Amino acid sequence: MAIHGPFEEEANISRVVLSRFMPEDDLFTSLKRIARDHAIERGVIISAIGSVKNVVFVNVRPHTGIPVKTEDMIEIEEAGPFELLSLEGNFFPSQEDGEPVIHLHAILGTSSGAVIGGHLLKATVFTTAEVVLGSVVGSSVYKAKSDVTKRMELLKR
Amino acid sequence: MAIHGPFEEEANISRVVLSRFMPEDDLFTSLKRIARDHAIERGVIISAIGSVKNVVFVNVRPHTGIPVKTEDMIEIEEAGPFELLSLEGNFFPSQEDGEPVIHLHAILGTSSGAVIGGHLLKATVFTTAEVVLGSVVGSSVYKAKSDVTKRMELLKR
Amino acid sequence: MAIHGPFEEEANISRVVLSRFMPEDDLFTSLKRIARDHAIERGVIISAIGSVKNVVFVNVRPHTGIPVKTEDMIEIEEAGPFELLSLEGNFFPSQEDGEPVIHLHAILGTSSGAVIGGHLLKATVFTTAEVVLGSVVGSSVYKAKSDVTKRMELLKR
Repeated sequence: MAIHGPFEEEANISRVVLSRFMPEDDLFTSLKRIARDHAIERGVIISAIGSVKNVVFVNVRPHTGIPVKTEDMIEIEEAGPFELLSLEGNFFPSQEDGEPVIHLHAILGTSSGAVIGGHLLKATVFTTAEVVLGSVVGSSVYKAKSDVTKRMELLKR
Repeated sequence: MAIHGPFEEEANISRVVLSRFMPEDDLFTSLKRIARDHAIERGVIISAIGSVKNVVFVNVRPHTGIPVKTEDMIEIEEAGPFELLSLEGNFFPSQEDGEPVIHLHAILGTSSGAVIGGHLLKATVFTTAEVVLGSVVGSSVYKAKSDVTKRMELLKR
Repeated sequence: MAIHGPFEEEANISRVVLSRFMPEDDLFTSLKRIARDHAIERGVIISAIGSVKNVVFVNVRPHTGIPVKTEDMIEIEEAGPFELLSLEGNFFPSQEDGEPVIHLHAILGTSSGAVIGGHLLKATVFTTAEVVLGSVVGSSVYKAKSDVTKRMELLKR
């Protein structure tokens, strides 16, 4: 059982990988490939802009409490395409198998000028994605499912 | 009296502090604690995602001019919880007493998929907040109240 | 003719320029000046908050395909002022003449708490803009018009 608590640790962003993704690329698959090819065990998105389509994201229902249940999350699916206005997030190795657990939040511009977004589950590149990924070194944290919130969360062993 | 003007200076982000905040943590208090514990005098948010509740933020009324008056700002209070889609901002020491002045802008996802946000005054962590804070070294700027805009602004002595 | 493809390259953000822009400053002009004054050939926005007015941005119409045509883009012009909640983007030299091609996506808070934004074409600083610009070294990519998408895109020679 993962006992989660607060932590803080000093680390460095020793290098970045600058990449350009192509139309039809899956955003999550592309990030995993970059991580593997450049031996980035822990990463943080420094910057990412471009455009995406076929997007799936979730948000929390009002008045949801902890633990968050599946029915507290609302899944939204949108064909787009949309300008990718902001992509924030990180990946850390799963405590279980060491595979990168990617946690992304996306903000998308619509044709009315209004903006939509949420915790991202899926996105396909429309025209391009220009991504600057930072390699976090000196960190020893993992991702594991929290018994309190029932979500994958950062855990320091 | 603070005479404000434009400036530009070269600096370095020498290290980062990676932290995880817990449910019920106050976002501003937590950032101040991190700054103090790790002796970060000047900091910038590199990345932050998670979820928040009991949020208060302000935006400017249309057609507002300079100086910005209190009645030009609209305060919005929302219980949430919300996905924290983006948190941008920084802190610099107050010219008056050296205490960190935190300036944050937040963007939040709602259950409809629409997005809200503004200049953040208050937020409580809902499930988690994963924050990468950069320590800015080589800078000599402060925060002081501008006589022109009547807001706390960056000032180079 | 520019043949565009995916690429990924390792680079470093060796230093940052911290700057404060003044009321009435043009955002694009100010960024170009910073790049020139500090000899930053390739740059990425690490953080930027403040407020802006007289903003022009574009978004893509739903169901747009590739190549993107002029009529697929919707231009939105707003007087504001608005809190600048997020500014993401980068600049790289044009393959044609070496001049910086600035690519910015902005997210703006409105007085209702709703958020608007898109691919930014123009913005004037309202009260202030606090910008942390990272200098990307070790990169060899350029910007050139893609024959596929008809947009300025990153290109590795």
